[in-house]
Amino acid sequence: MKVLVKDAALAAHWETFLAALPPEAEAHLATSEAEAADLIRDAEVFVGSTLPQHLAARAGRLRLVHAVGAGLDGIDRSALGEHVLAANTFHHESSIAEHIAAALVMLRRGTLHQDARLRVGQWSSPIYDATMAQARTLRGSTITFLGFGHIGQAAWQVLRAFGMRGRAITRTGAVNAADHGLEAVAPVAALEEHLTSSDVLVVSIPLNEATRGSITSRELDLLGTDGLLVNVARGPIVHEGDLYAALRDRRIAGAVLDVWYRYPGPDGRGLPANEPFGALPNVLLTPHSSGITADTFLGRLGDIAENITRLAEGRPLKNLVETT
Amino acid sequence: MKVLVKDAALAAHWETFLAALPPEAEAHLATSEAEAADLIRDAEVFVGSTLPQHLAARAGRLRLVHAVGAGLDGIDRSALGEHVLAANTFHHESSIAEHIAAALVMLRRGTLHQDARLRVGQWSSPIYDATMAQARTLRGSTITFLGFGHIGQAAWQVLRAFGMRGRAITRTGAVNAADHGLEAVAPVAALEEHLTSSDVLVVSIPLNEATRGSITSRELDLLGTDGLLVNVARGPIVHEGDLYAALRDRRIAGAVLDVWYRYPGPDGRGLPANEPFGALPNVLLTPHSSGITADTFLGRLGDIAENITRLAEGRPLKNLVETT
Repeated sequence: MKVLVKDAALAAHWETFLAALPPEAEAHLATSEAEAADLIRDAEVFVGSTLPQHLAARAGRLRLVHAVGAGLDGIDRSALGEHVLAANTFHHESSIAEHIAAALVMLRRGTLHQDARLRVGQWSSPIYDATMAQARTLRGSTITFLGFGHIGQAAWQVLRAFGMRGRAITRTGAVNAADHGLEAVAPVAALEEHLTSSDVLVVSIPLNEATRGSITSRELDLLGTDGLLVNVARGPIVHEGDLYAALRDRRIAGAVLDVWYRYPGPDGRGLPANEPFGALPNVLLTPHSSGITADTFLGRLGDIAENITRLAEGRPLKNLVETT
Repeated sequence: MKVLVKDAALAAHWETFLAALPPEAEAHLATSEAEAADLIRDAEVFVGSTLPQHLAARAGRLRLVHAVGAGLDGIDRSALGEHVLAANTFHHESSIAEHIAAALVMLRRGTLHQDARLRVGQWSSPIYDATMAQARTLRGSTITFLGFGHIGQAAWQVLRAFGMRGRAITRTGAVNAADHGLEAVAPVAALEEHLTSSDVLVVSIPLNEATRGSITSRELDLLGTDGLLVNVARGPIVHEGDLYAALRDRRIAGAVLDVWYRYPGPDGRGLPANEPFGALPNVLLTPHSSGITADTFLGRLGDIAENITRLAEGRPLKNLVETT
């Protein structure tokens, strides 16, 4: 069973991946488009996050397309036969949770500024500068999760230990608050009332026509001048111009932004938004990397190898994604 | 009962402090040395972290000197009568714990570098640069606390929720591991064997002749090239030249440094060490600020007001510190 892998993050763990595969699998790593175009002709399994139409059209024996993450938006399934299975995998939630917790503390404390100043001999602290306000801990603050799936739950497990108060807004409000140690769980209609009494809003919902642009000036103003926004979902869920203006004008205190309005090509060059977020002091910007850790890909590799084993043995696969 | 307060951090919460005092207390805030010199003549309580000899010598009615932190090293007790009580207060442990957790994640991930690069349009991530290694989460890593007092315990409470494995090295090794969810508790003699299997070492022990310079090249090399050091105790516990060389030569992976080898005057200007730590990329430097939050000082204010109430009512005080 020929397995074609076209994924740099998985390539970094190649020996581990090979060791996890069943004996029937013969894995090939494509390091270029040309290699991929050659290898896909008789591959039974494709592993990767981007399968464009021109590659998909060359596949003759494909039985399974396995994404190396949650999203299948890079895979053109229209060119594949209906019998081709598609599966995804997660394991990024602990990595993203750690980033959220760390970034919130850093923003509250002004740690990046303190580090930069101390390197040139300026002790930027209320102890030496009476005009500086004392920072606040996360302890005792209230965090609201918009979306309470894998990511929201993993982040809350960590932040609960900091002594935060937590609430979750879900599509239906059907999560049990007590099971998760939350103060409240509410449906989306109740978001506004929860924002007025929240210190932090974490956005981790899918991007779709209902959620695109759903966080606007109105929601940000309800979060308020002490409020922090975290977006680890998809950039366009938060209205770009509204977010930039709220940060610039200090109508919210700051933002942790890991997902963007513009993405670069394979060279990784290009500003991540139309608005100049990079000029703001009250943001922490990361290149959609909050989930990019060895732990994430070792977990995903295990899922993928498990599914290839199941396919080889004729057993039902995990994490199958239906054609939408 | 006249109360003299000479402390900028407490001044930031003046109204809250006044409201917490008993009716008998008449509090005065000294905003200059001259004012303090005048007010101390008939003050019964001095609240502050520095009471130099020339001020102490003018005190005629003093009954209590209350530090606004843990240390009484800024208070010259030699010039005070033996009947003058001295007390201290803590409440910094949650703030320091949050900083430790956040700083460790940031160092592991290279977040400061990612933020700086993305601001100029460079997506610094293994997704776009195959030569970059995938970062590791704290989850699954092993942390050893050298000292397991208020700070070590508060940090462990948070980091345990990240899924770390924890160990504590204490003077006697008498802490119960199971009570704290630790893998092991050992006396100082066992530090070396634990360092070889630890990813992170957190130093939170007092500075004294036994501990000064006790972390040297030997201990840092045992921590190893993937190891992170956190010092939130006192700078000189870790040998300055050895630490600098180990960081520069990547014999350890990085360090979170909040405490220093040199401190500035009241203007807050001056490099924090003799070695150029500020030129290193693999450190996070903060100006002894990990415990400086509103939460810390609101907690301390409550302790201080409580002790003044007890003094007014003739009851025994909390947190008394014996003359040593």
